[in-house]
Amino acid sequence: MNLTILGCYAATPRTFTNPTSQVLEIRNRLFLIDCGEGTQVQLRKNKIRFSKINHIFISHLHGDHFFGLIGLISTFALLNRVTDLNIYGPKGIKEIIQLQLKLSNSWTSYGLFFHELESKETRIVFEDEKVMVKTIPLKHRVYTNGFLFQEKIRERKLNIEAVEKYGIEKCYYQNIKNGKDIILESGELIENHLITSDPVLPMSYAFCSDTAYNESIIPMINNVDVLYHEATFLDSEAKLAQKTMHSTAKQAATIAFKANVKKLILGHYSTRYESIEIFRTEAEVIFQNVLLAEDGKSFEF
Amino acid sequence: MNLTILGCYAATPRTFTNPTSQVLEIRNRLFLIDCGEGTQVQLRKNKIRFSKINHIFISHLHGDHFFGLIGLISTFALLNRVTDLNIYGPKGIKEIIQLQLKLSNSWTSYGLFFHELESKETRIVFEDEKVMVKTIPLKHRVYTNGFLFQEKIRERKLNIEAVEKYGIEKCYYQNIKNGKDIILESGELIENHLITSDPVLPMSYAFCSDTAYNESIIPMINNVDVLYHEATFLDSEAKLAQKTMHSTAKQAATIAFKANVKKLILGHYSTRYESIEIFRTEAEVIFQNVLLAEDGKSFEF
Repeated sequence: MNLTILGCYAATPRTFTNPTSQVLEIRNRLFLIDCGEGTQVQLRKNKIRFSKINHIFISHLHGDHFFGLIGLISTFALLNRVTDLNIYGPKGIKEIIQLQLKLSNSWTSYGLFFHELESKETRIVFEDEKVMVKTIPLKHRVYTNGFLFQEKIRERKLNIEAVEKYGIEKCYYQNIKNGKDIILESGELIENHLITSDPVLPMSYAFCSDTAYNESIIPMINNVDVLYHEATFLDSEAKLAQKTMHSTAKQAATIAFKANVKKLILGHYSTRYESIEIFRTEAEVIFQNVLLAEDGKSFEF
Repeated sequence: MNLTILGCYAATPRTFTNPTSQVLEIRNRLFLIDCGEGTQVQLRKNKIRFSKINHIFISHLHGDHFFGLIGLISTFALLNRVTDLNIYGPKGIKEIIQLQLKLSNSWTSYGLFFHELESKETRIVFEDEKVMVKTIPLKHRVYTNGFLFQEKIRERKLNIEAVEKYGIEKCYYQNIKNGKDIILESGELIENHLITSDPVLPMSYAFCSDTAYNESIIPMINNVDVLYHEATFLDSEAKLAQKTMHSTAKQAATIAFKANVKKLILGHYSTRYESIEIFRTEAEVIFQNVLLAEDGKSFEF
């Protein structure tokens, strides 16, 4: 699982900082999460191939999370993209994009599918044989969802030496990888654990931005490998965080601790702070494994 | 008169090139012309004060000319702007902006006024005591206007030595600067030209992008000091230019020559060309005074 941060600052794009956007690669699938202004240039700078992006998840309709979407959609069309593109985001996003395409008299060369969200409960929004994506309802000034990316349980690993020892034919391998026991021609039962080993544990990633401190998300993100939680402010601005329905670094760490996640990535920093290192310092008092998002940084998990 | 190019490339923003946007400063007024994605960052990079921008002119609703507008409008609000902002652009622009503000539940802290254009004839869209702005109807795939910025004729320059010699009182100075003759108490008539000199000639700037080759604009831009004319392609792509309703460098130069302008700035280059110098070479065969737009370049006239 690989995460590339394209932008991790709040509010407005600036000379050296970008609004929210990130690319999650999991089981060879690429998911673009949020798309602030300038995302298409950040994708180019980080050498992420446009053609690999087929699914875009938008958390909410504040500009720093979606103003780059129309530009990316248009660029895909200018590049004569043919593959379908799926957009998952709050109700209204389809109207915004379609109005702009209509008024510019330009239509996409590819299938553009909107999956509009309006439920306040968690929903499965994407699923294939390897990955599932669910919404994580968040608390913010407008309707907002985080997203939980879960790798599905992998096949058991075949112990080639063992299956050959028992003379098991190749046509049974898939059943064995799926966990089935085998009865040999001699009638002997070979239990699965004798010819396989446990698969690599499935990975999970939770993106939670923007949100006020909200303990109700804990059951959903319990034990995830990586939690990206917004930390717009430091504890010194806790009142402002509450008023604007954002979180502090301390609150993000508290959620990480209570949800027993393995790693916490902080991001969505207000541009008022000169250094982001202090976010880590504040969070580490409560939760040990803290990473700091930075524009252009990649994390391998 | 000062012109700063924020972006001068066609189609999509890329790592080192920006879509159309430019700032014209004329008689201490700042006019933002077009607003492709990333314009707000380009304004920051070029140290142009956001608070000086009160009038934004949008030529047409193709993304590379206006996708940065909603971001700029939102940023102004986040910065608690109070001064009115005026947007001049094709019908539909108000709906696009207002829909996005509504869905993000964010409203501007300042007066946001839309002046929607739909006439196919030239119209005065802005006028104050020093500057007038008119539309230049262009030929493109969607409804498009160029803009003609005309400085008004300045007051005549007072010859202080001469007025003192005649003993003329200060209360008559404004009339003299306005071109009036003066009758002294002695009854002697002093003709205006004896006590003033000609004012600096008013400057004019014509922005013409995007457009197919279109001789009907010549009467409007005749004799302007500076013409910015799109040159998306070279003559080798003349057929493509015709099909997409763009111009070649040669065609831009032909318009400049026929309209007898003083200087021609080329821009809106297709990103297919490795060097832009060849645009100048091609244009100079027809018209001598050719300048090349470049992102971040300022021209003083």
